[in-house]
Amino acid sequence: MSLNFTAVEIIAAKRDKLELTDEQIDWTIKAYTNGQIADEQMSALLMAILLNGMNSRETSRWTDAMILSGETMNWSMLDRPTVDKHSTGGVGDKITLPLAPLVAACGAAVPQLSGRGLGHTGGTLDKLESIKGWKANLSNSEMMKVIQECGAVICAAGSGLAPADKKLYALRDVTGTVQAIPLIASSIMSKKIAEGTGALVLDVKTGSGAFMSDPKDAGNLAKIMVELGKRAGVETRALVTAMDVPLGLTVGNALEIRETIEVLSGGGPADVIELTLILAQEMLDAAKVKSKIDPATALKNGAAMDVWRKMITAQGGDLSSPLPIAKDKTYMKADRSGKLLNLDALKVGISAWKLGAGRQKQGDRLQHGAGIEIHAKPGDLVKQGQNILTLHSDDSARFAPALEALAGAVTIGDESEKVSRLPLIIERVGD
Amino acid sequence: MSLNFTAVEIIAAKRDKLELTDEQIDWTIKAYTNGQIADEQMSALLMAILLNGMNSRETSRWTDAMILSGETMNWSMLDRPTVDKHSTGGVGDKITLPLAPLVAACGAAVPQLSGRGLGHTGGTLDKLESIKGWKANLSNSEMMKVIQECGAVICAAGSGLAPADKKLYALRDVTGTVQAIPLIASSIMSKKIAEGTGALVLDVKTGSGAFMSDPKDAGNLAKIMVELGKRAGVETRALVTAMDVPLGLTVGNALEIRETIEVLSGGGPADVIELTLILAQEMLDAAKVKSKIDPATALKNGAAMDVWRKMITAQGGDLSSPLPIAKDKTYMKADRSGKLLNLDALKVGISAWKLGAGRQKQGDRLQHGAGIEIHAKPGDLVKQGQNILTLHSDDSARFAPALEALAGAVTIGDESEKVSRLPLIIERVGD
Repeated sequence: MSLNFTAVEIIAAKRDKLELTDEQIDWTIKAYTNGQIADEQMSALLMAILLNGMNSRETSRWTDAMILSGETMNWSMLDRPTVDKHSTGGVGDKITLPLAPLVAACGAAVPQLSGRGLGHTGGTLDKLESIKGWKANLSNSEMMKVIQECGAVICAAGSGLAPADKKLYALRDVTGTVQAIPLIASSIMSKKIAEGTGALVLDVKTGSGAFMSDPKDAGNLAKIMVELGKRAGVETRALVTAMDVPLGLTVGNALEIRETIEVLSGGGPADVIELTLILAQEMLDAAKVKSKIDPATALKNGAAMDVWRKMITAQGGDLSSPLPIAKDKTYMKADRSGKLLNLDALKVGISAWKLGAGRQKQGDRLQHGAGIEIHAKPGDLVKQGQNILTLHSDDSARFAPALEALAGAVTIGDESEKVSRLPLIIERVGD
Repeated sequence: MSLNFTAVEIIAAKRDKLELTDEQIDWTIKAYTNGQIADEQMSALLMAILLNGMNSRETSRWTDAMILSGETMNWSMLDRPTVDKHSTGGVGDKITLPLAPLVAACGAAVPQLSGRGLGHTGGTLDKLESIKGWKANLSNSEMMKVIQECGAVICAAGSGLAPADKKLYALRDVTGTVQAIPLIASSIMSKKIAEGTGALVLDVKTGSGAFMSDPKDAGNLAKIMVELGKRAGVETRALVTAMDVPLGLTVGNALEIRETIEVLSGGGPADVIELTLILAQEMLDAAKVKSKIDPATALKNGAAMDVWRKMITAQGGDLSSPLPIAKDKTYMKADRSGKLLNLDALKVGISAWKLGAGRQKQGDRLQHGAGIEIHAKPGDLVKQGQNILTLHSDDSARFAPALEALAGAVTIGDESEKVSRLPLIIERVGD
């Protein structure tokens, strides 16, 4: 194997806009997984793929090679159908956290293998690690035990599952190569197919704070992923949803856990509740589960909260322990009175990242308390001098760059002006 | 400094085809030098630069930042003018080896700081390391001692000289990012300017075996480099020369040392001798040295050989020790009788690389005995079954891929057909 290809040849082929052959793709994924291709070589290839593209054959083969790089899971011993949801990542997108226990409370099994923060968007595992003692890494038998006892489990994909993707995911995060449709599609679908879920609902974000800011690109990504899923026998659907404005009122790890608990307690921001309920229904439909309880009711009456508590506790989480709070804070205030017309998701995401909520480099530690609280959303009336955002960080030196990143993030206009926002649900694919 | 930019922001800017600001470039080079930007981040940036370009302001700033990343040398205590030569790299291009002692024999001082193999082209230091005991790494005072005693020194750039380039050079080699004009120009010129030479002659290769296969690109690279040099006060000229066919009759480290010794002994292949003499005269002119001895005479009468012996011995080289010979060999034979019309430099270079003469990955060891001997050049008449090439390697498993890389490398036609080759000297820049 070692002499058939070299990493430099493969990089050069994609750099020179050639199609990679099936054999080249198989070799690349295998050689990267076993360390024969170094990180610095793979990141050059990833940038070449980002700029020069991969066609659907290449993307499909790349996905298959990543699945074959590890084991695949099997949930057939569970007494109910499995369904998973995946979001392509957004700012303040903590929907997985209330959603998984909610869908479990309605009768499906939710094996939610999640990821870490990628670029300026948060990661579910990073958020949950704000809870003292909670552990992301479970063995396969621990995972099975949690899902059998609680109906849902949120944990890291085991190191045996699509190990090639695990390495690539971390690498893309720190090399500016997140935003490539073939890499996003193959990363998500290789994990989800290897994870063995029976049904899958994809939440493909679009708008400034999403990796696909253009709804057309997002629709394209959705179609590629639905096709990859169906080809592998997974009942797959996708919703293209709005990420022009942060979801909810918090961005940052512990802050988003706090909001999750509000939602599971029957409160919380309207947009978080609405999207959670829409996705819950979609998941139950995809899994063909006839729920005895309506998702809205399960959220209000504490049924979802019960699953949450069991699930977090089963993974060592101490729910009585206070959530981390950043050491320092500052504010961004309204520079005039009027109507809030826009709150740019990307700028808020980058600012939160600079505050310490995300990583600058592979292996960096993040600050669990860091992030941004939002006190007004588009459509709200504000008064000059009022706090619009509260910025939290353990390191006050981060406030200046974080505030700088917020330049132009907030637009305040006259009360008579209209707010222009994306609709929450933009497109449905694969139903 | 650390919070003003992040590596991902800079990568994303170039990925998205933006110009990097002076501040971004300064930060990038500084942060890469001190390890704040990781190799996998830099290689993604390099690929983005390769595919999306840098303009002349960016290239000039990038060069300055690399010079400033380390110390600059000073040769003003020498009693004669300094002049250096740099080749952009070719297949079988061992010209530096006879040239440096020859120019020293003619009265200039030659501080030749050289590099290692990059891509499919060889590196002067790798070649010299075929000589038992020869050491590439000298302290500044050792370097000064050798040049004072011998008139020339060929060694590695000290770790203090453009350390940013040193890291980048090794990284580009293994990440398919060698062939970017702004990176080639800034790499060469930062080292040469920091090295403190008074005059500089650039040998910019073009043709299949050069990084710039198109003579127009090579001319462009030559102009960019001459401008960078003149701006820094170095008397700089460039020749664009042919690299469509390997230079001389050997490709590979020890094999090229053997040929060098032939040339210094008054023999050797005509093309190696011709180019050596042209470059020697150009260097003496650039340094404004009126030589008491004609370069052709100094090559024939042993004056250059005397400098070579002193210089190699001064760096620990044992000239009485036999050169390494690869453990195994095989042949590529003429498939018909007729006239050799072409011998493709790139294919020969890649084949030699696959035999073990070059590196596949940063830090790989190369085989000093590996490489290719050439028994016929374009224009020569050959007989069917005659050996055209001898392939040498320590590892016979490498022969199959090396022979495969040679497919189409040799064209044999009728005796009446004309050989189409590039002229040896294609363009002069900066005189």
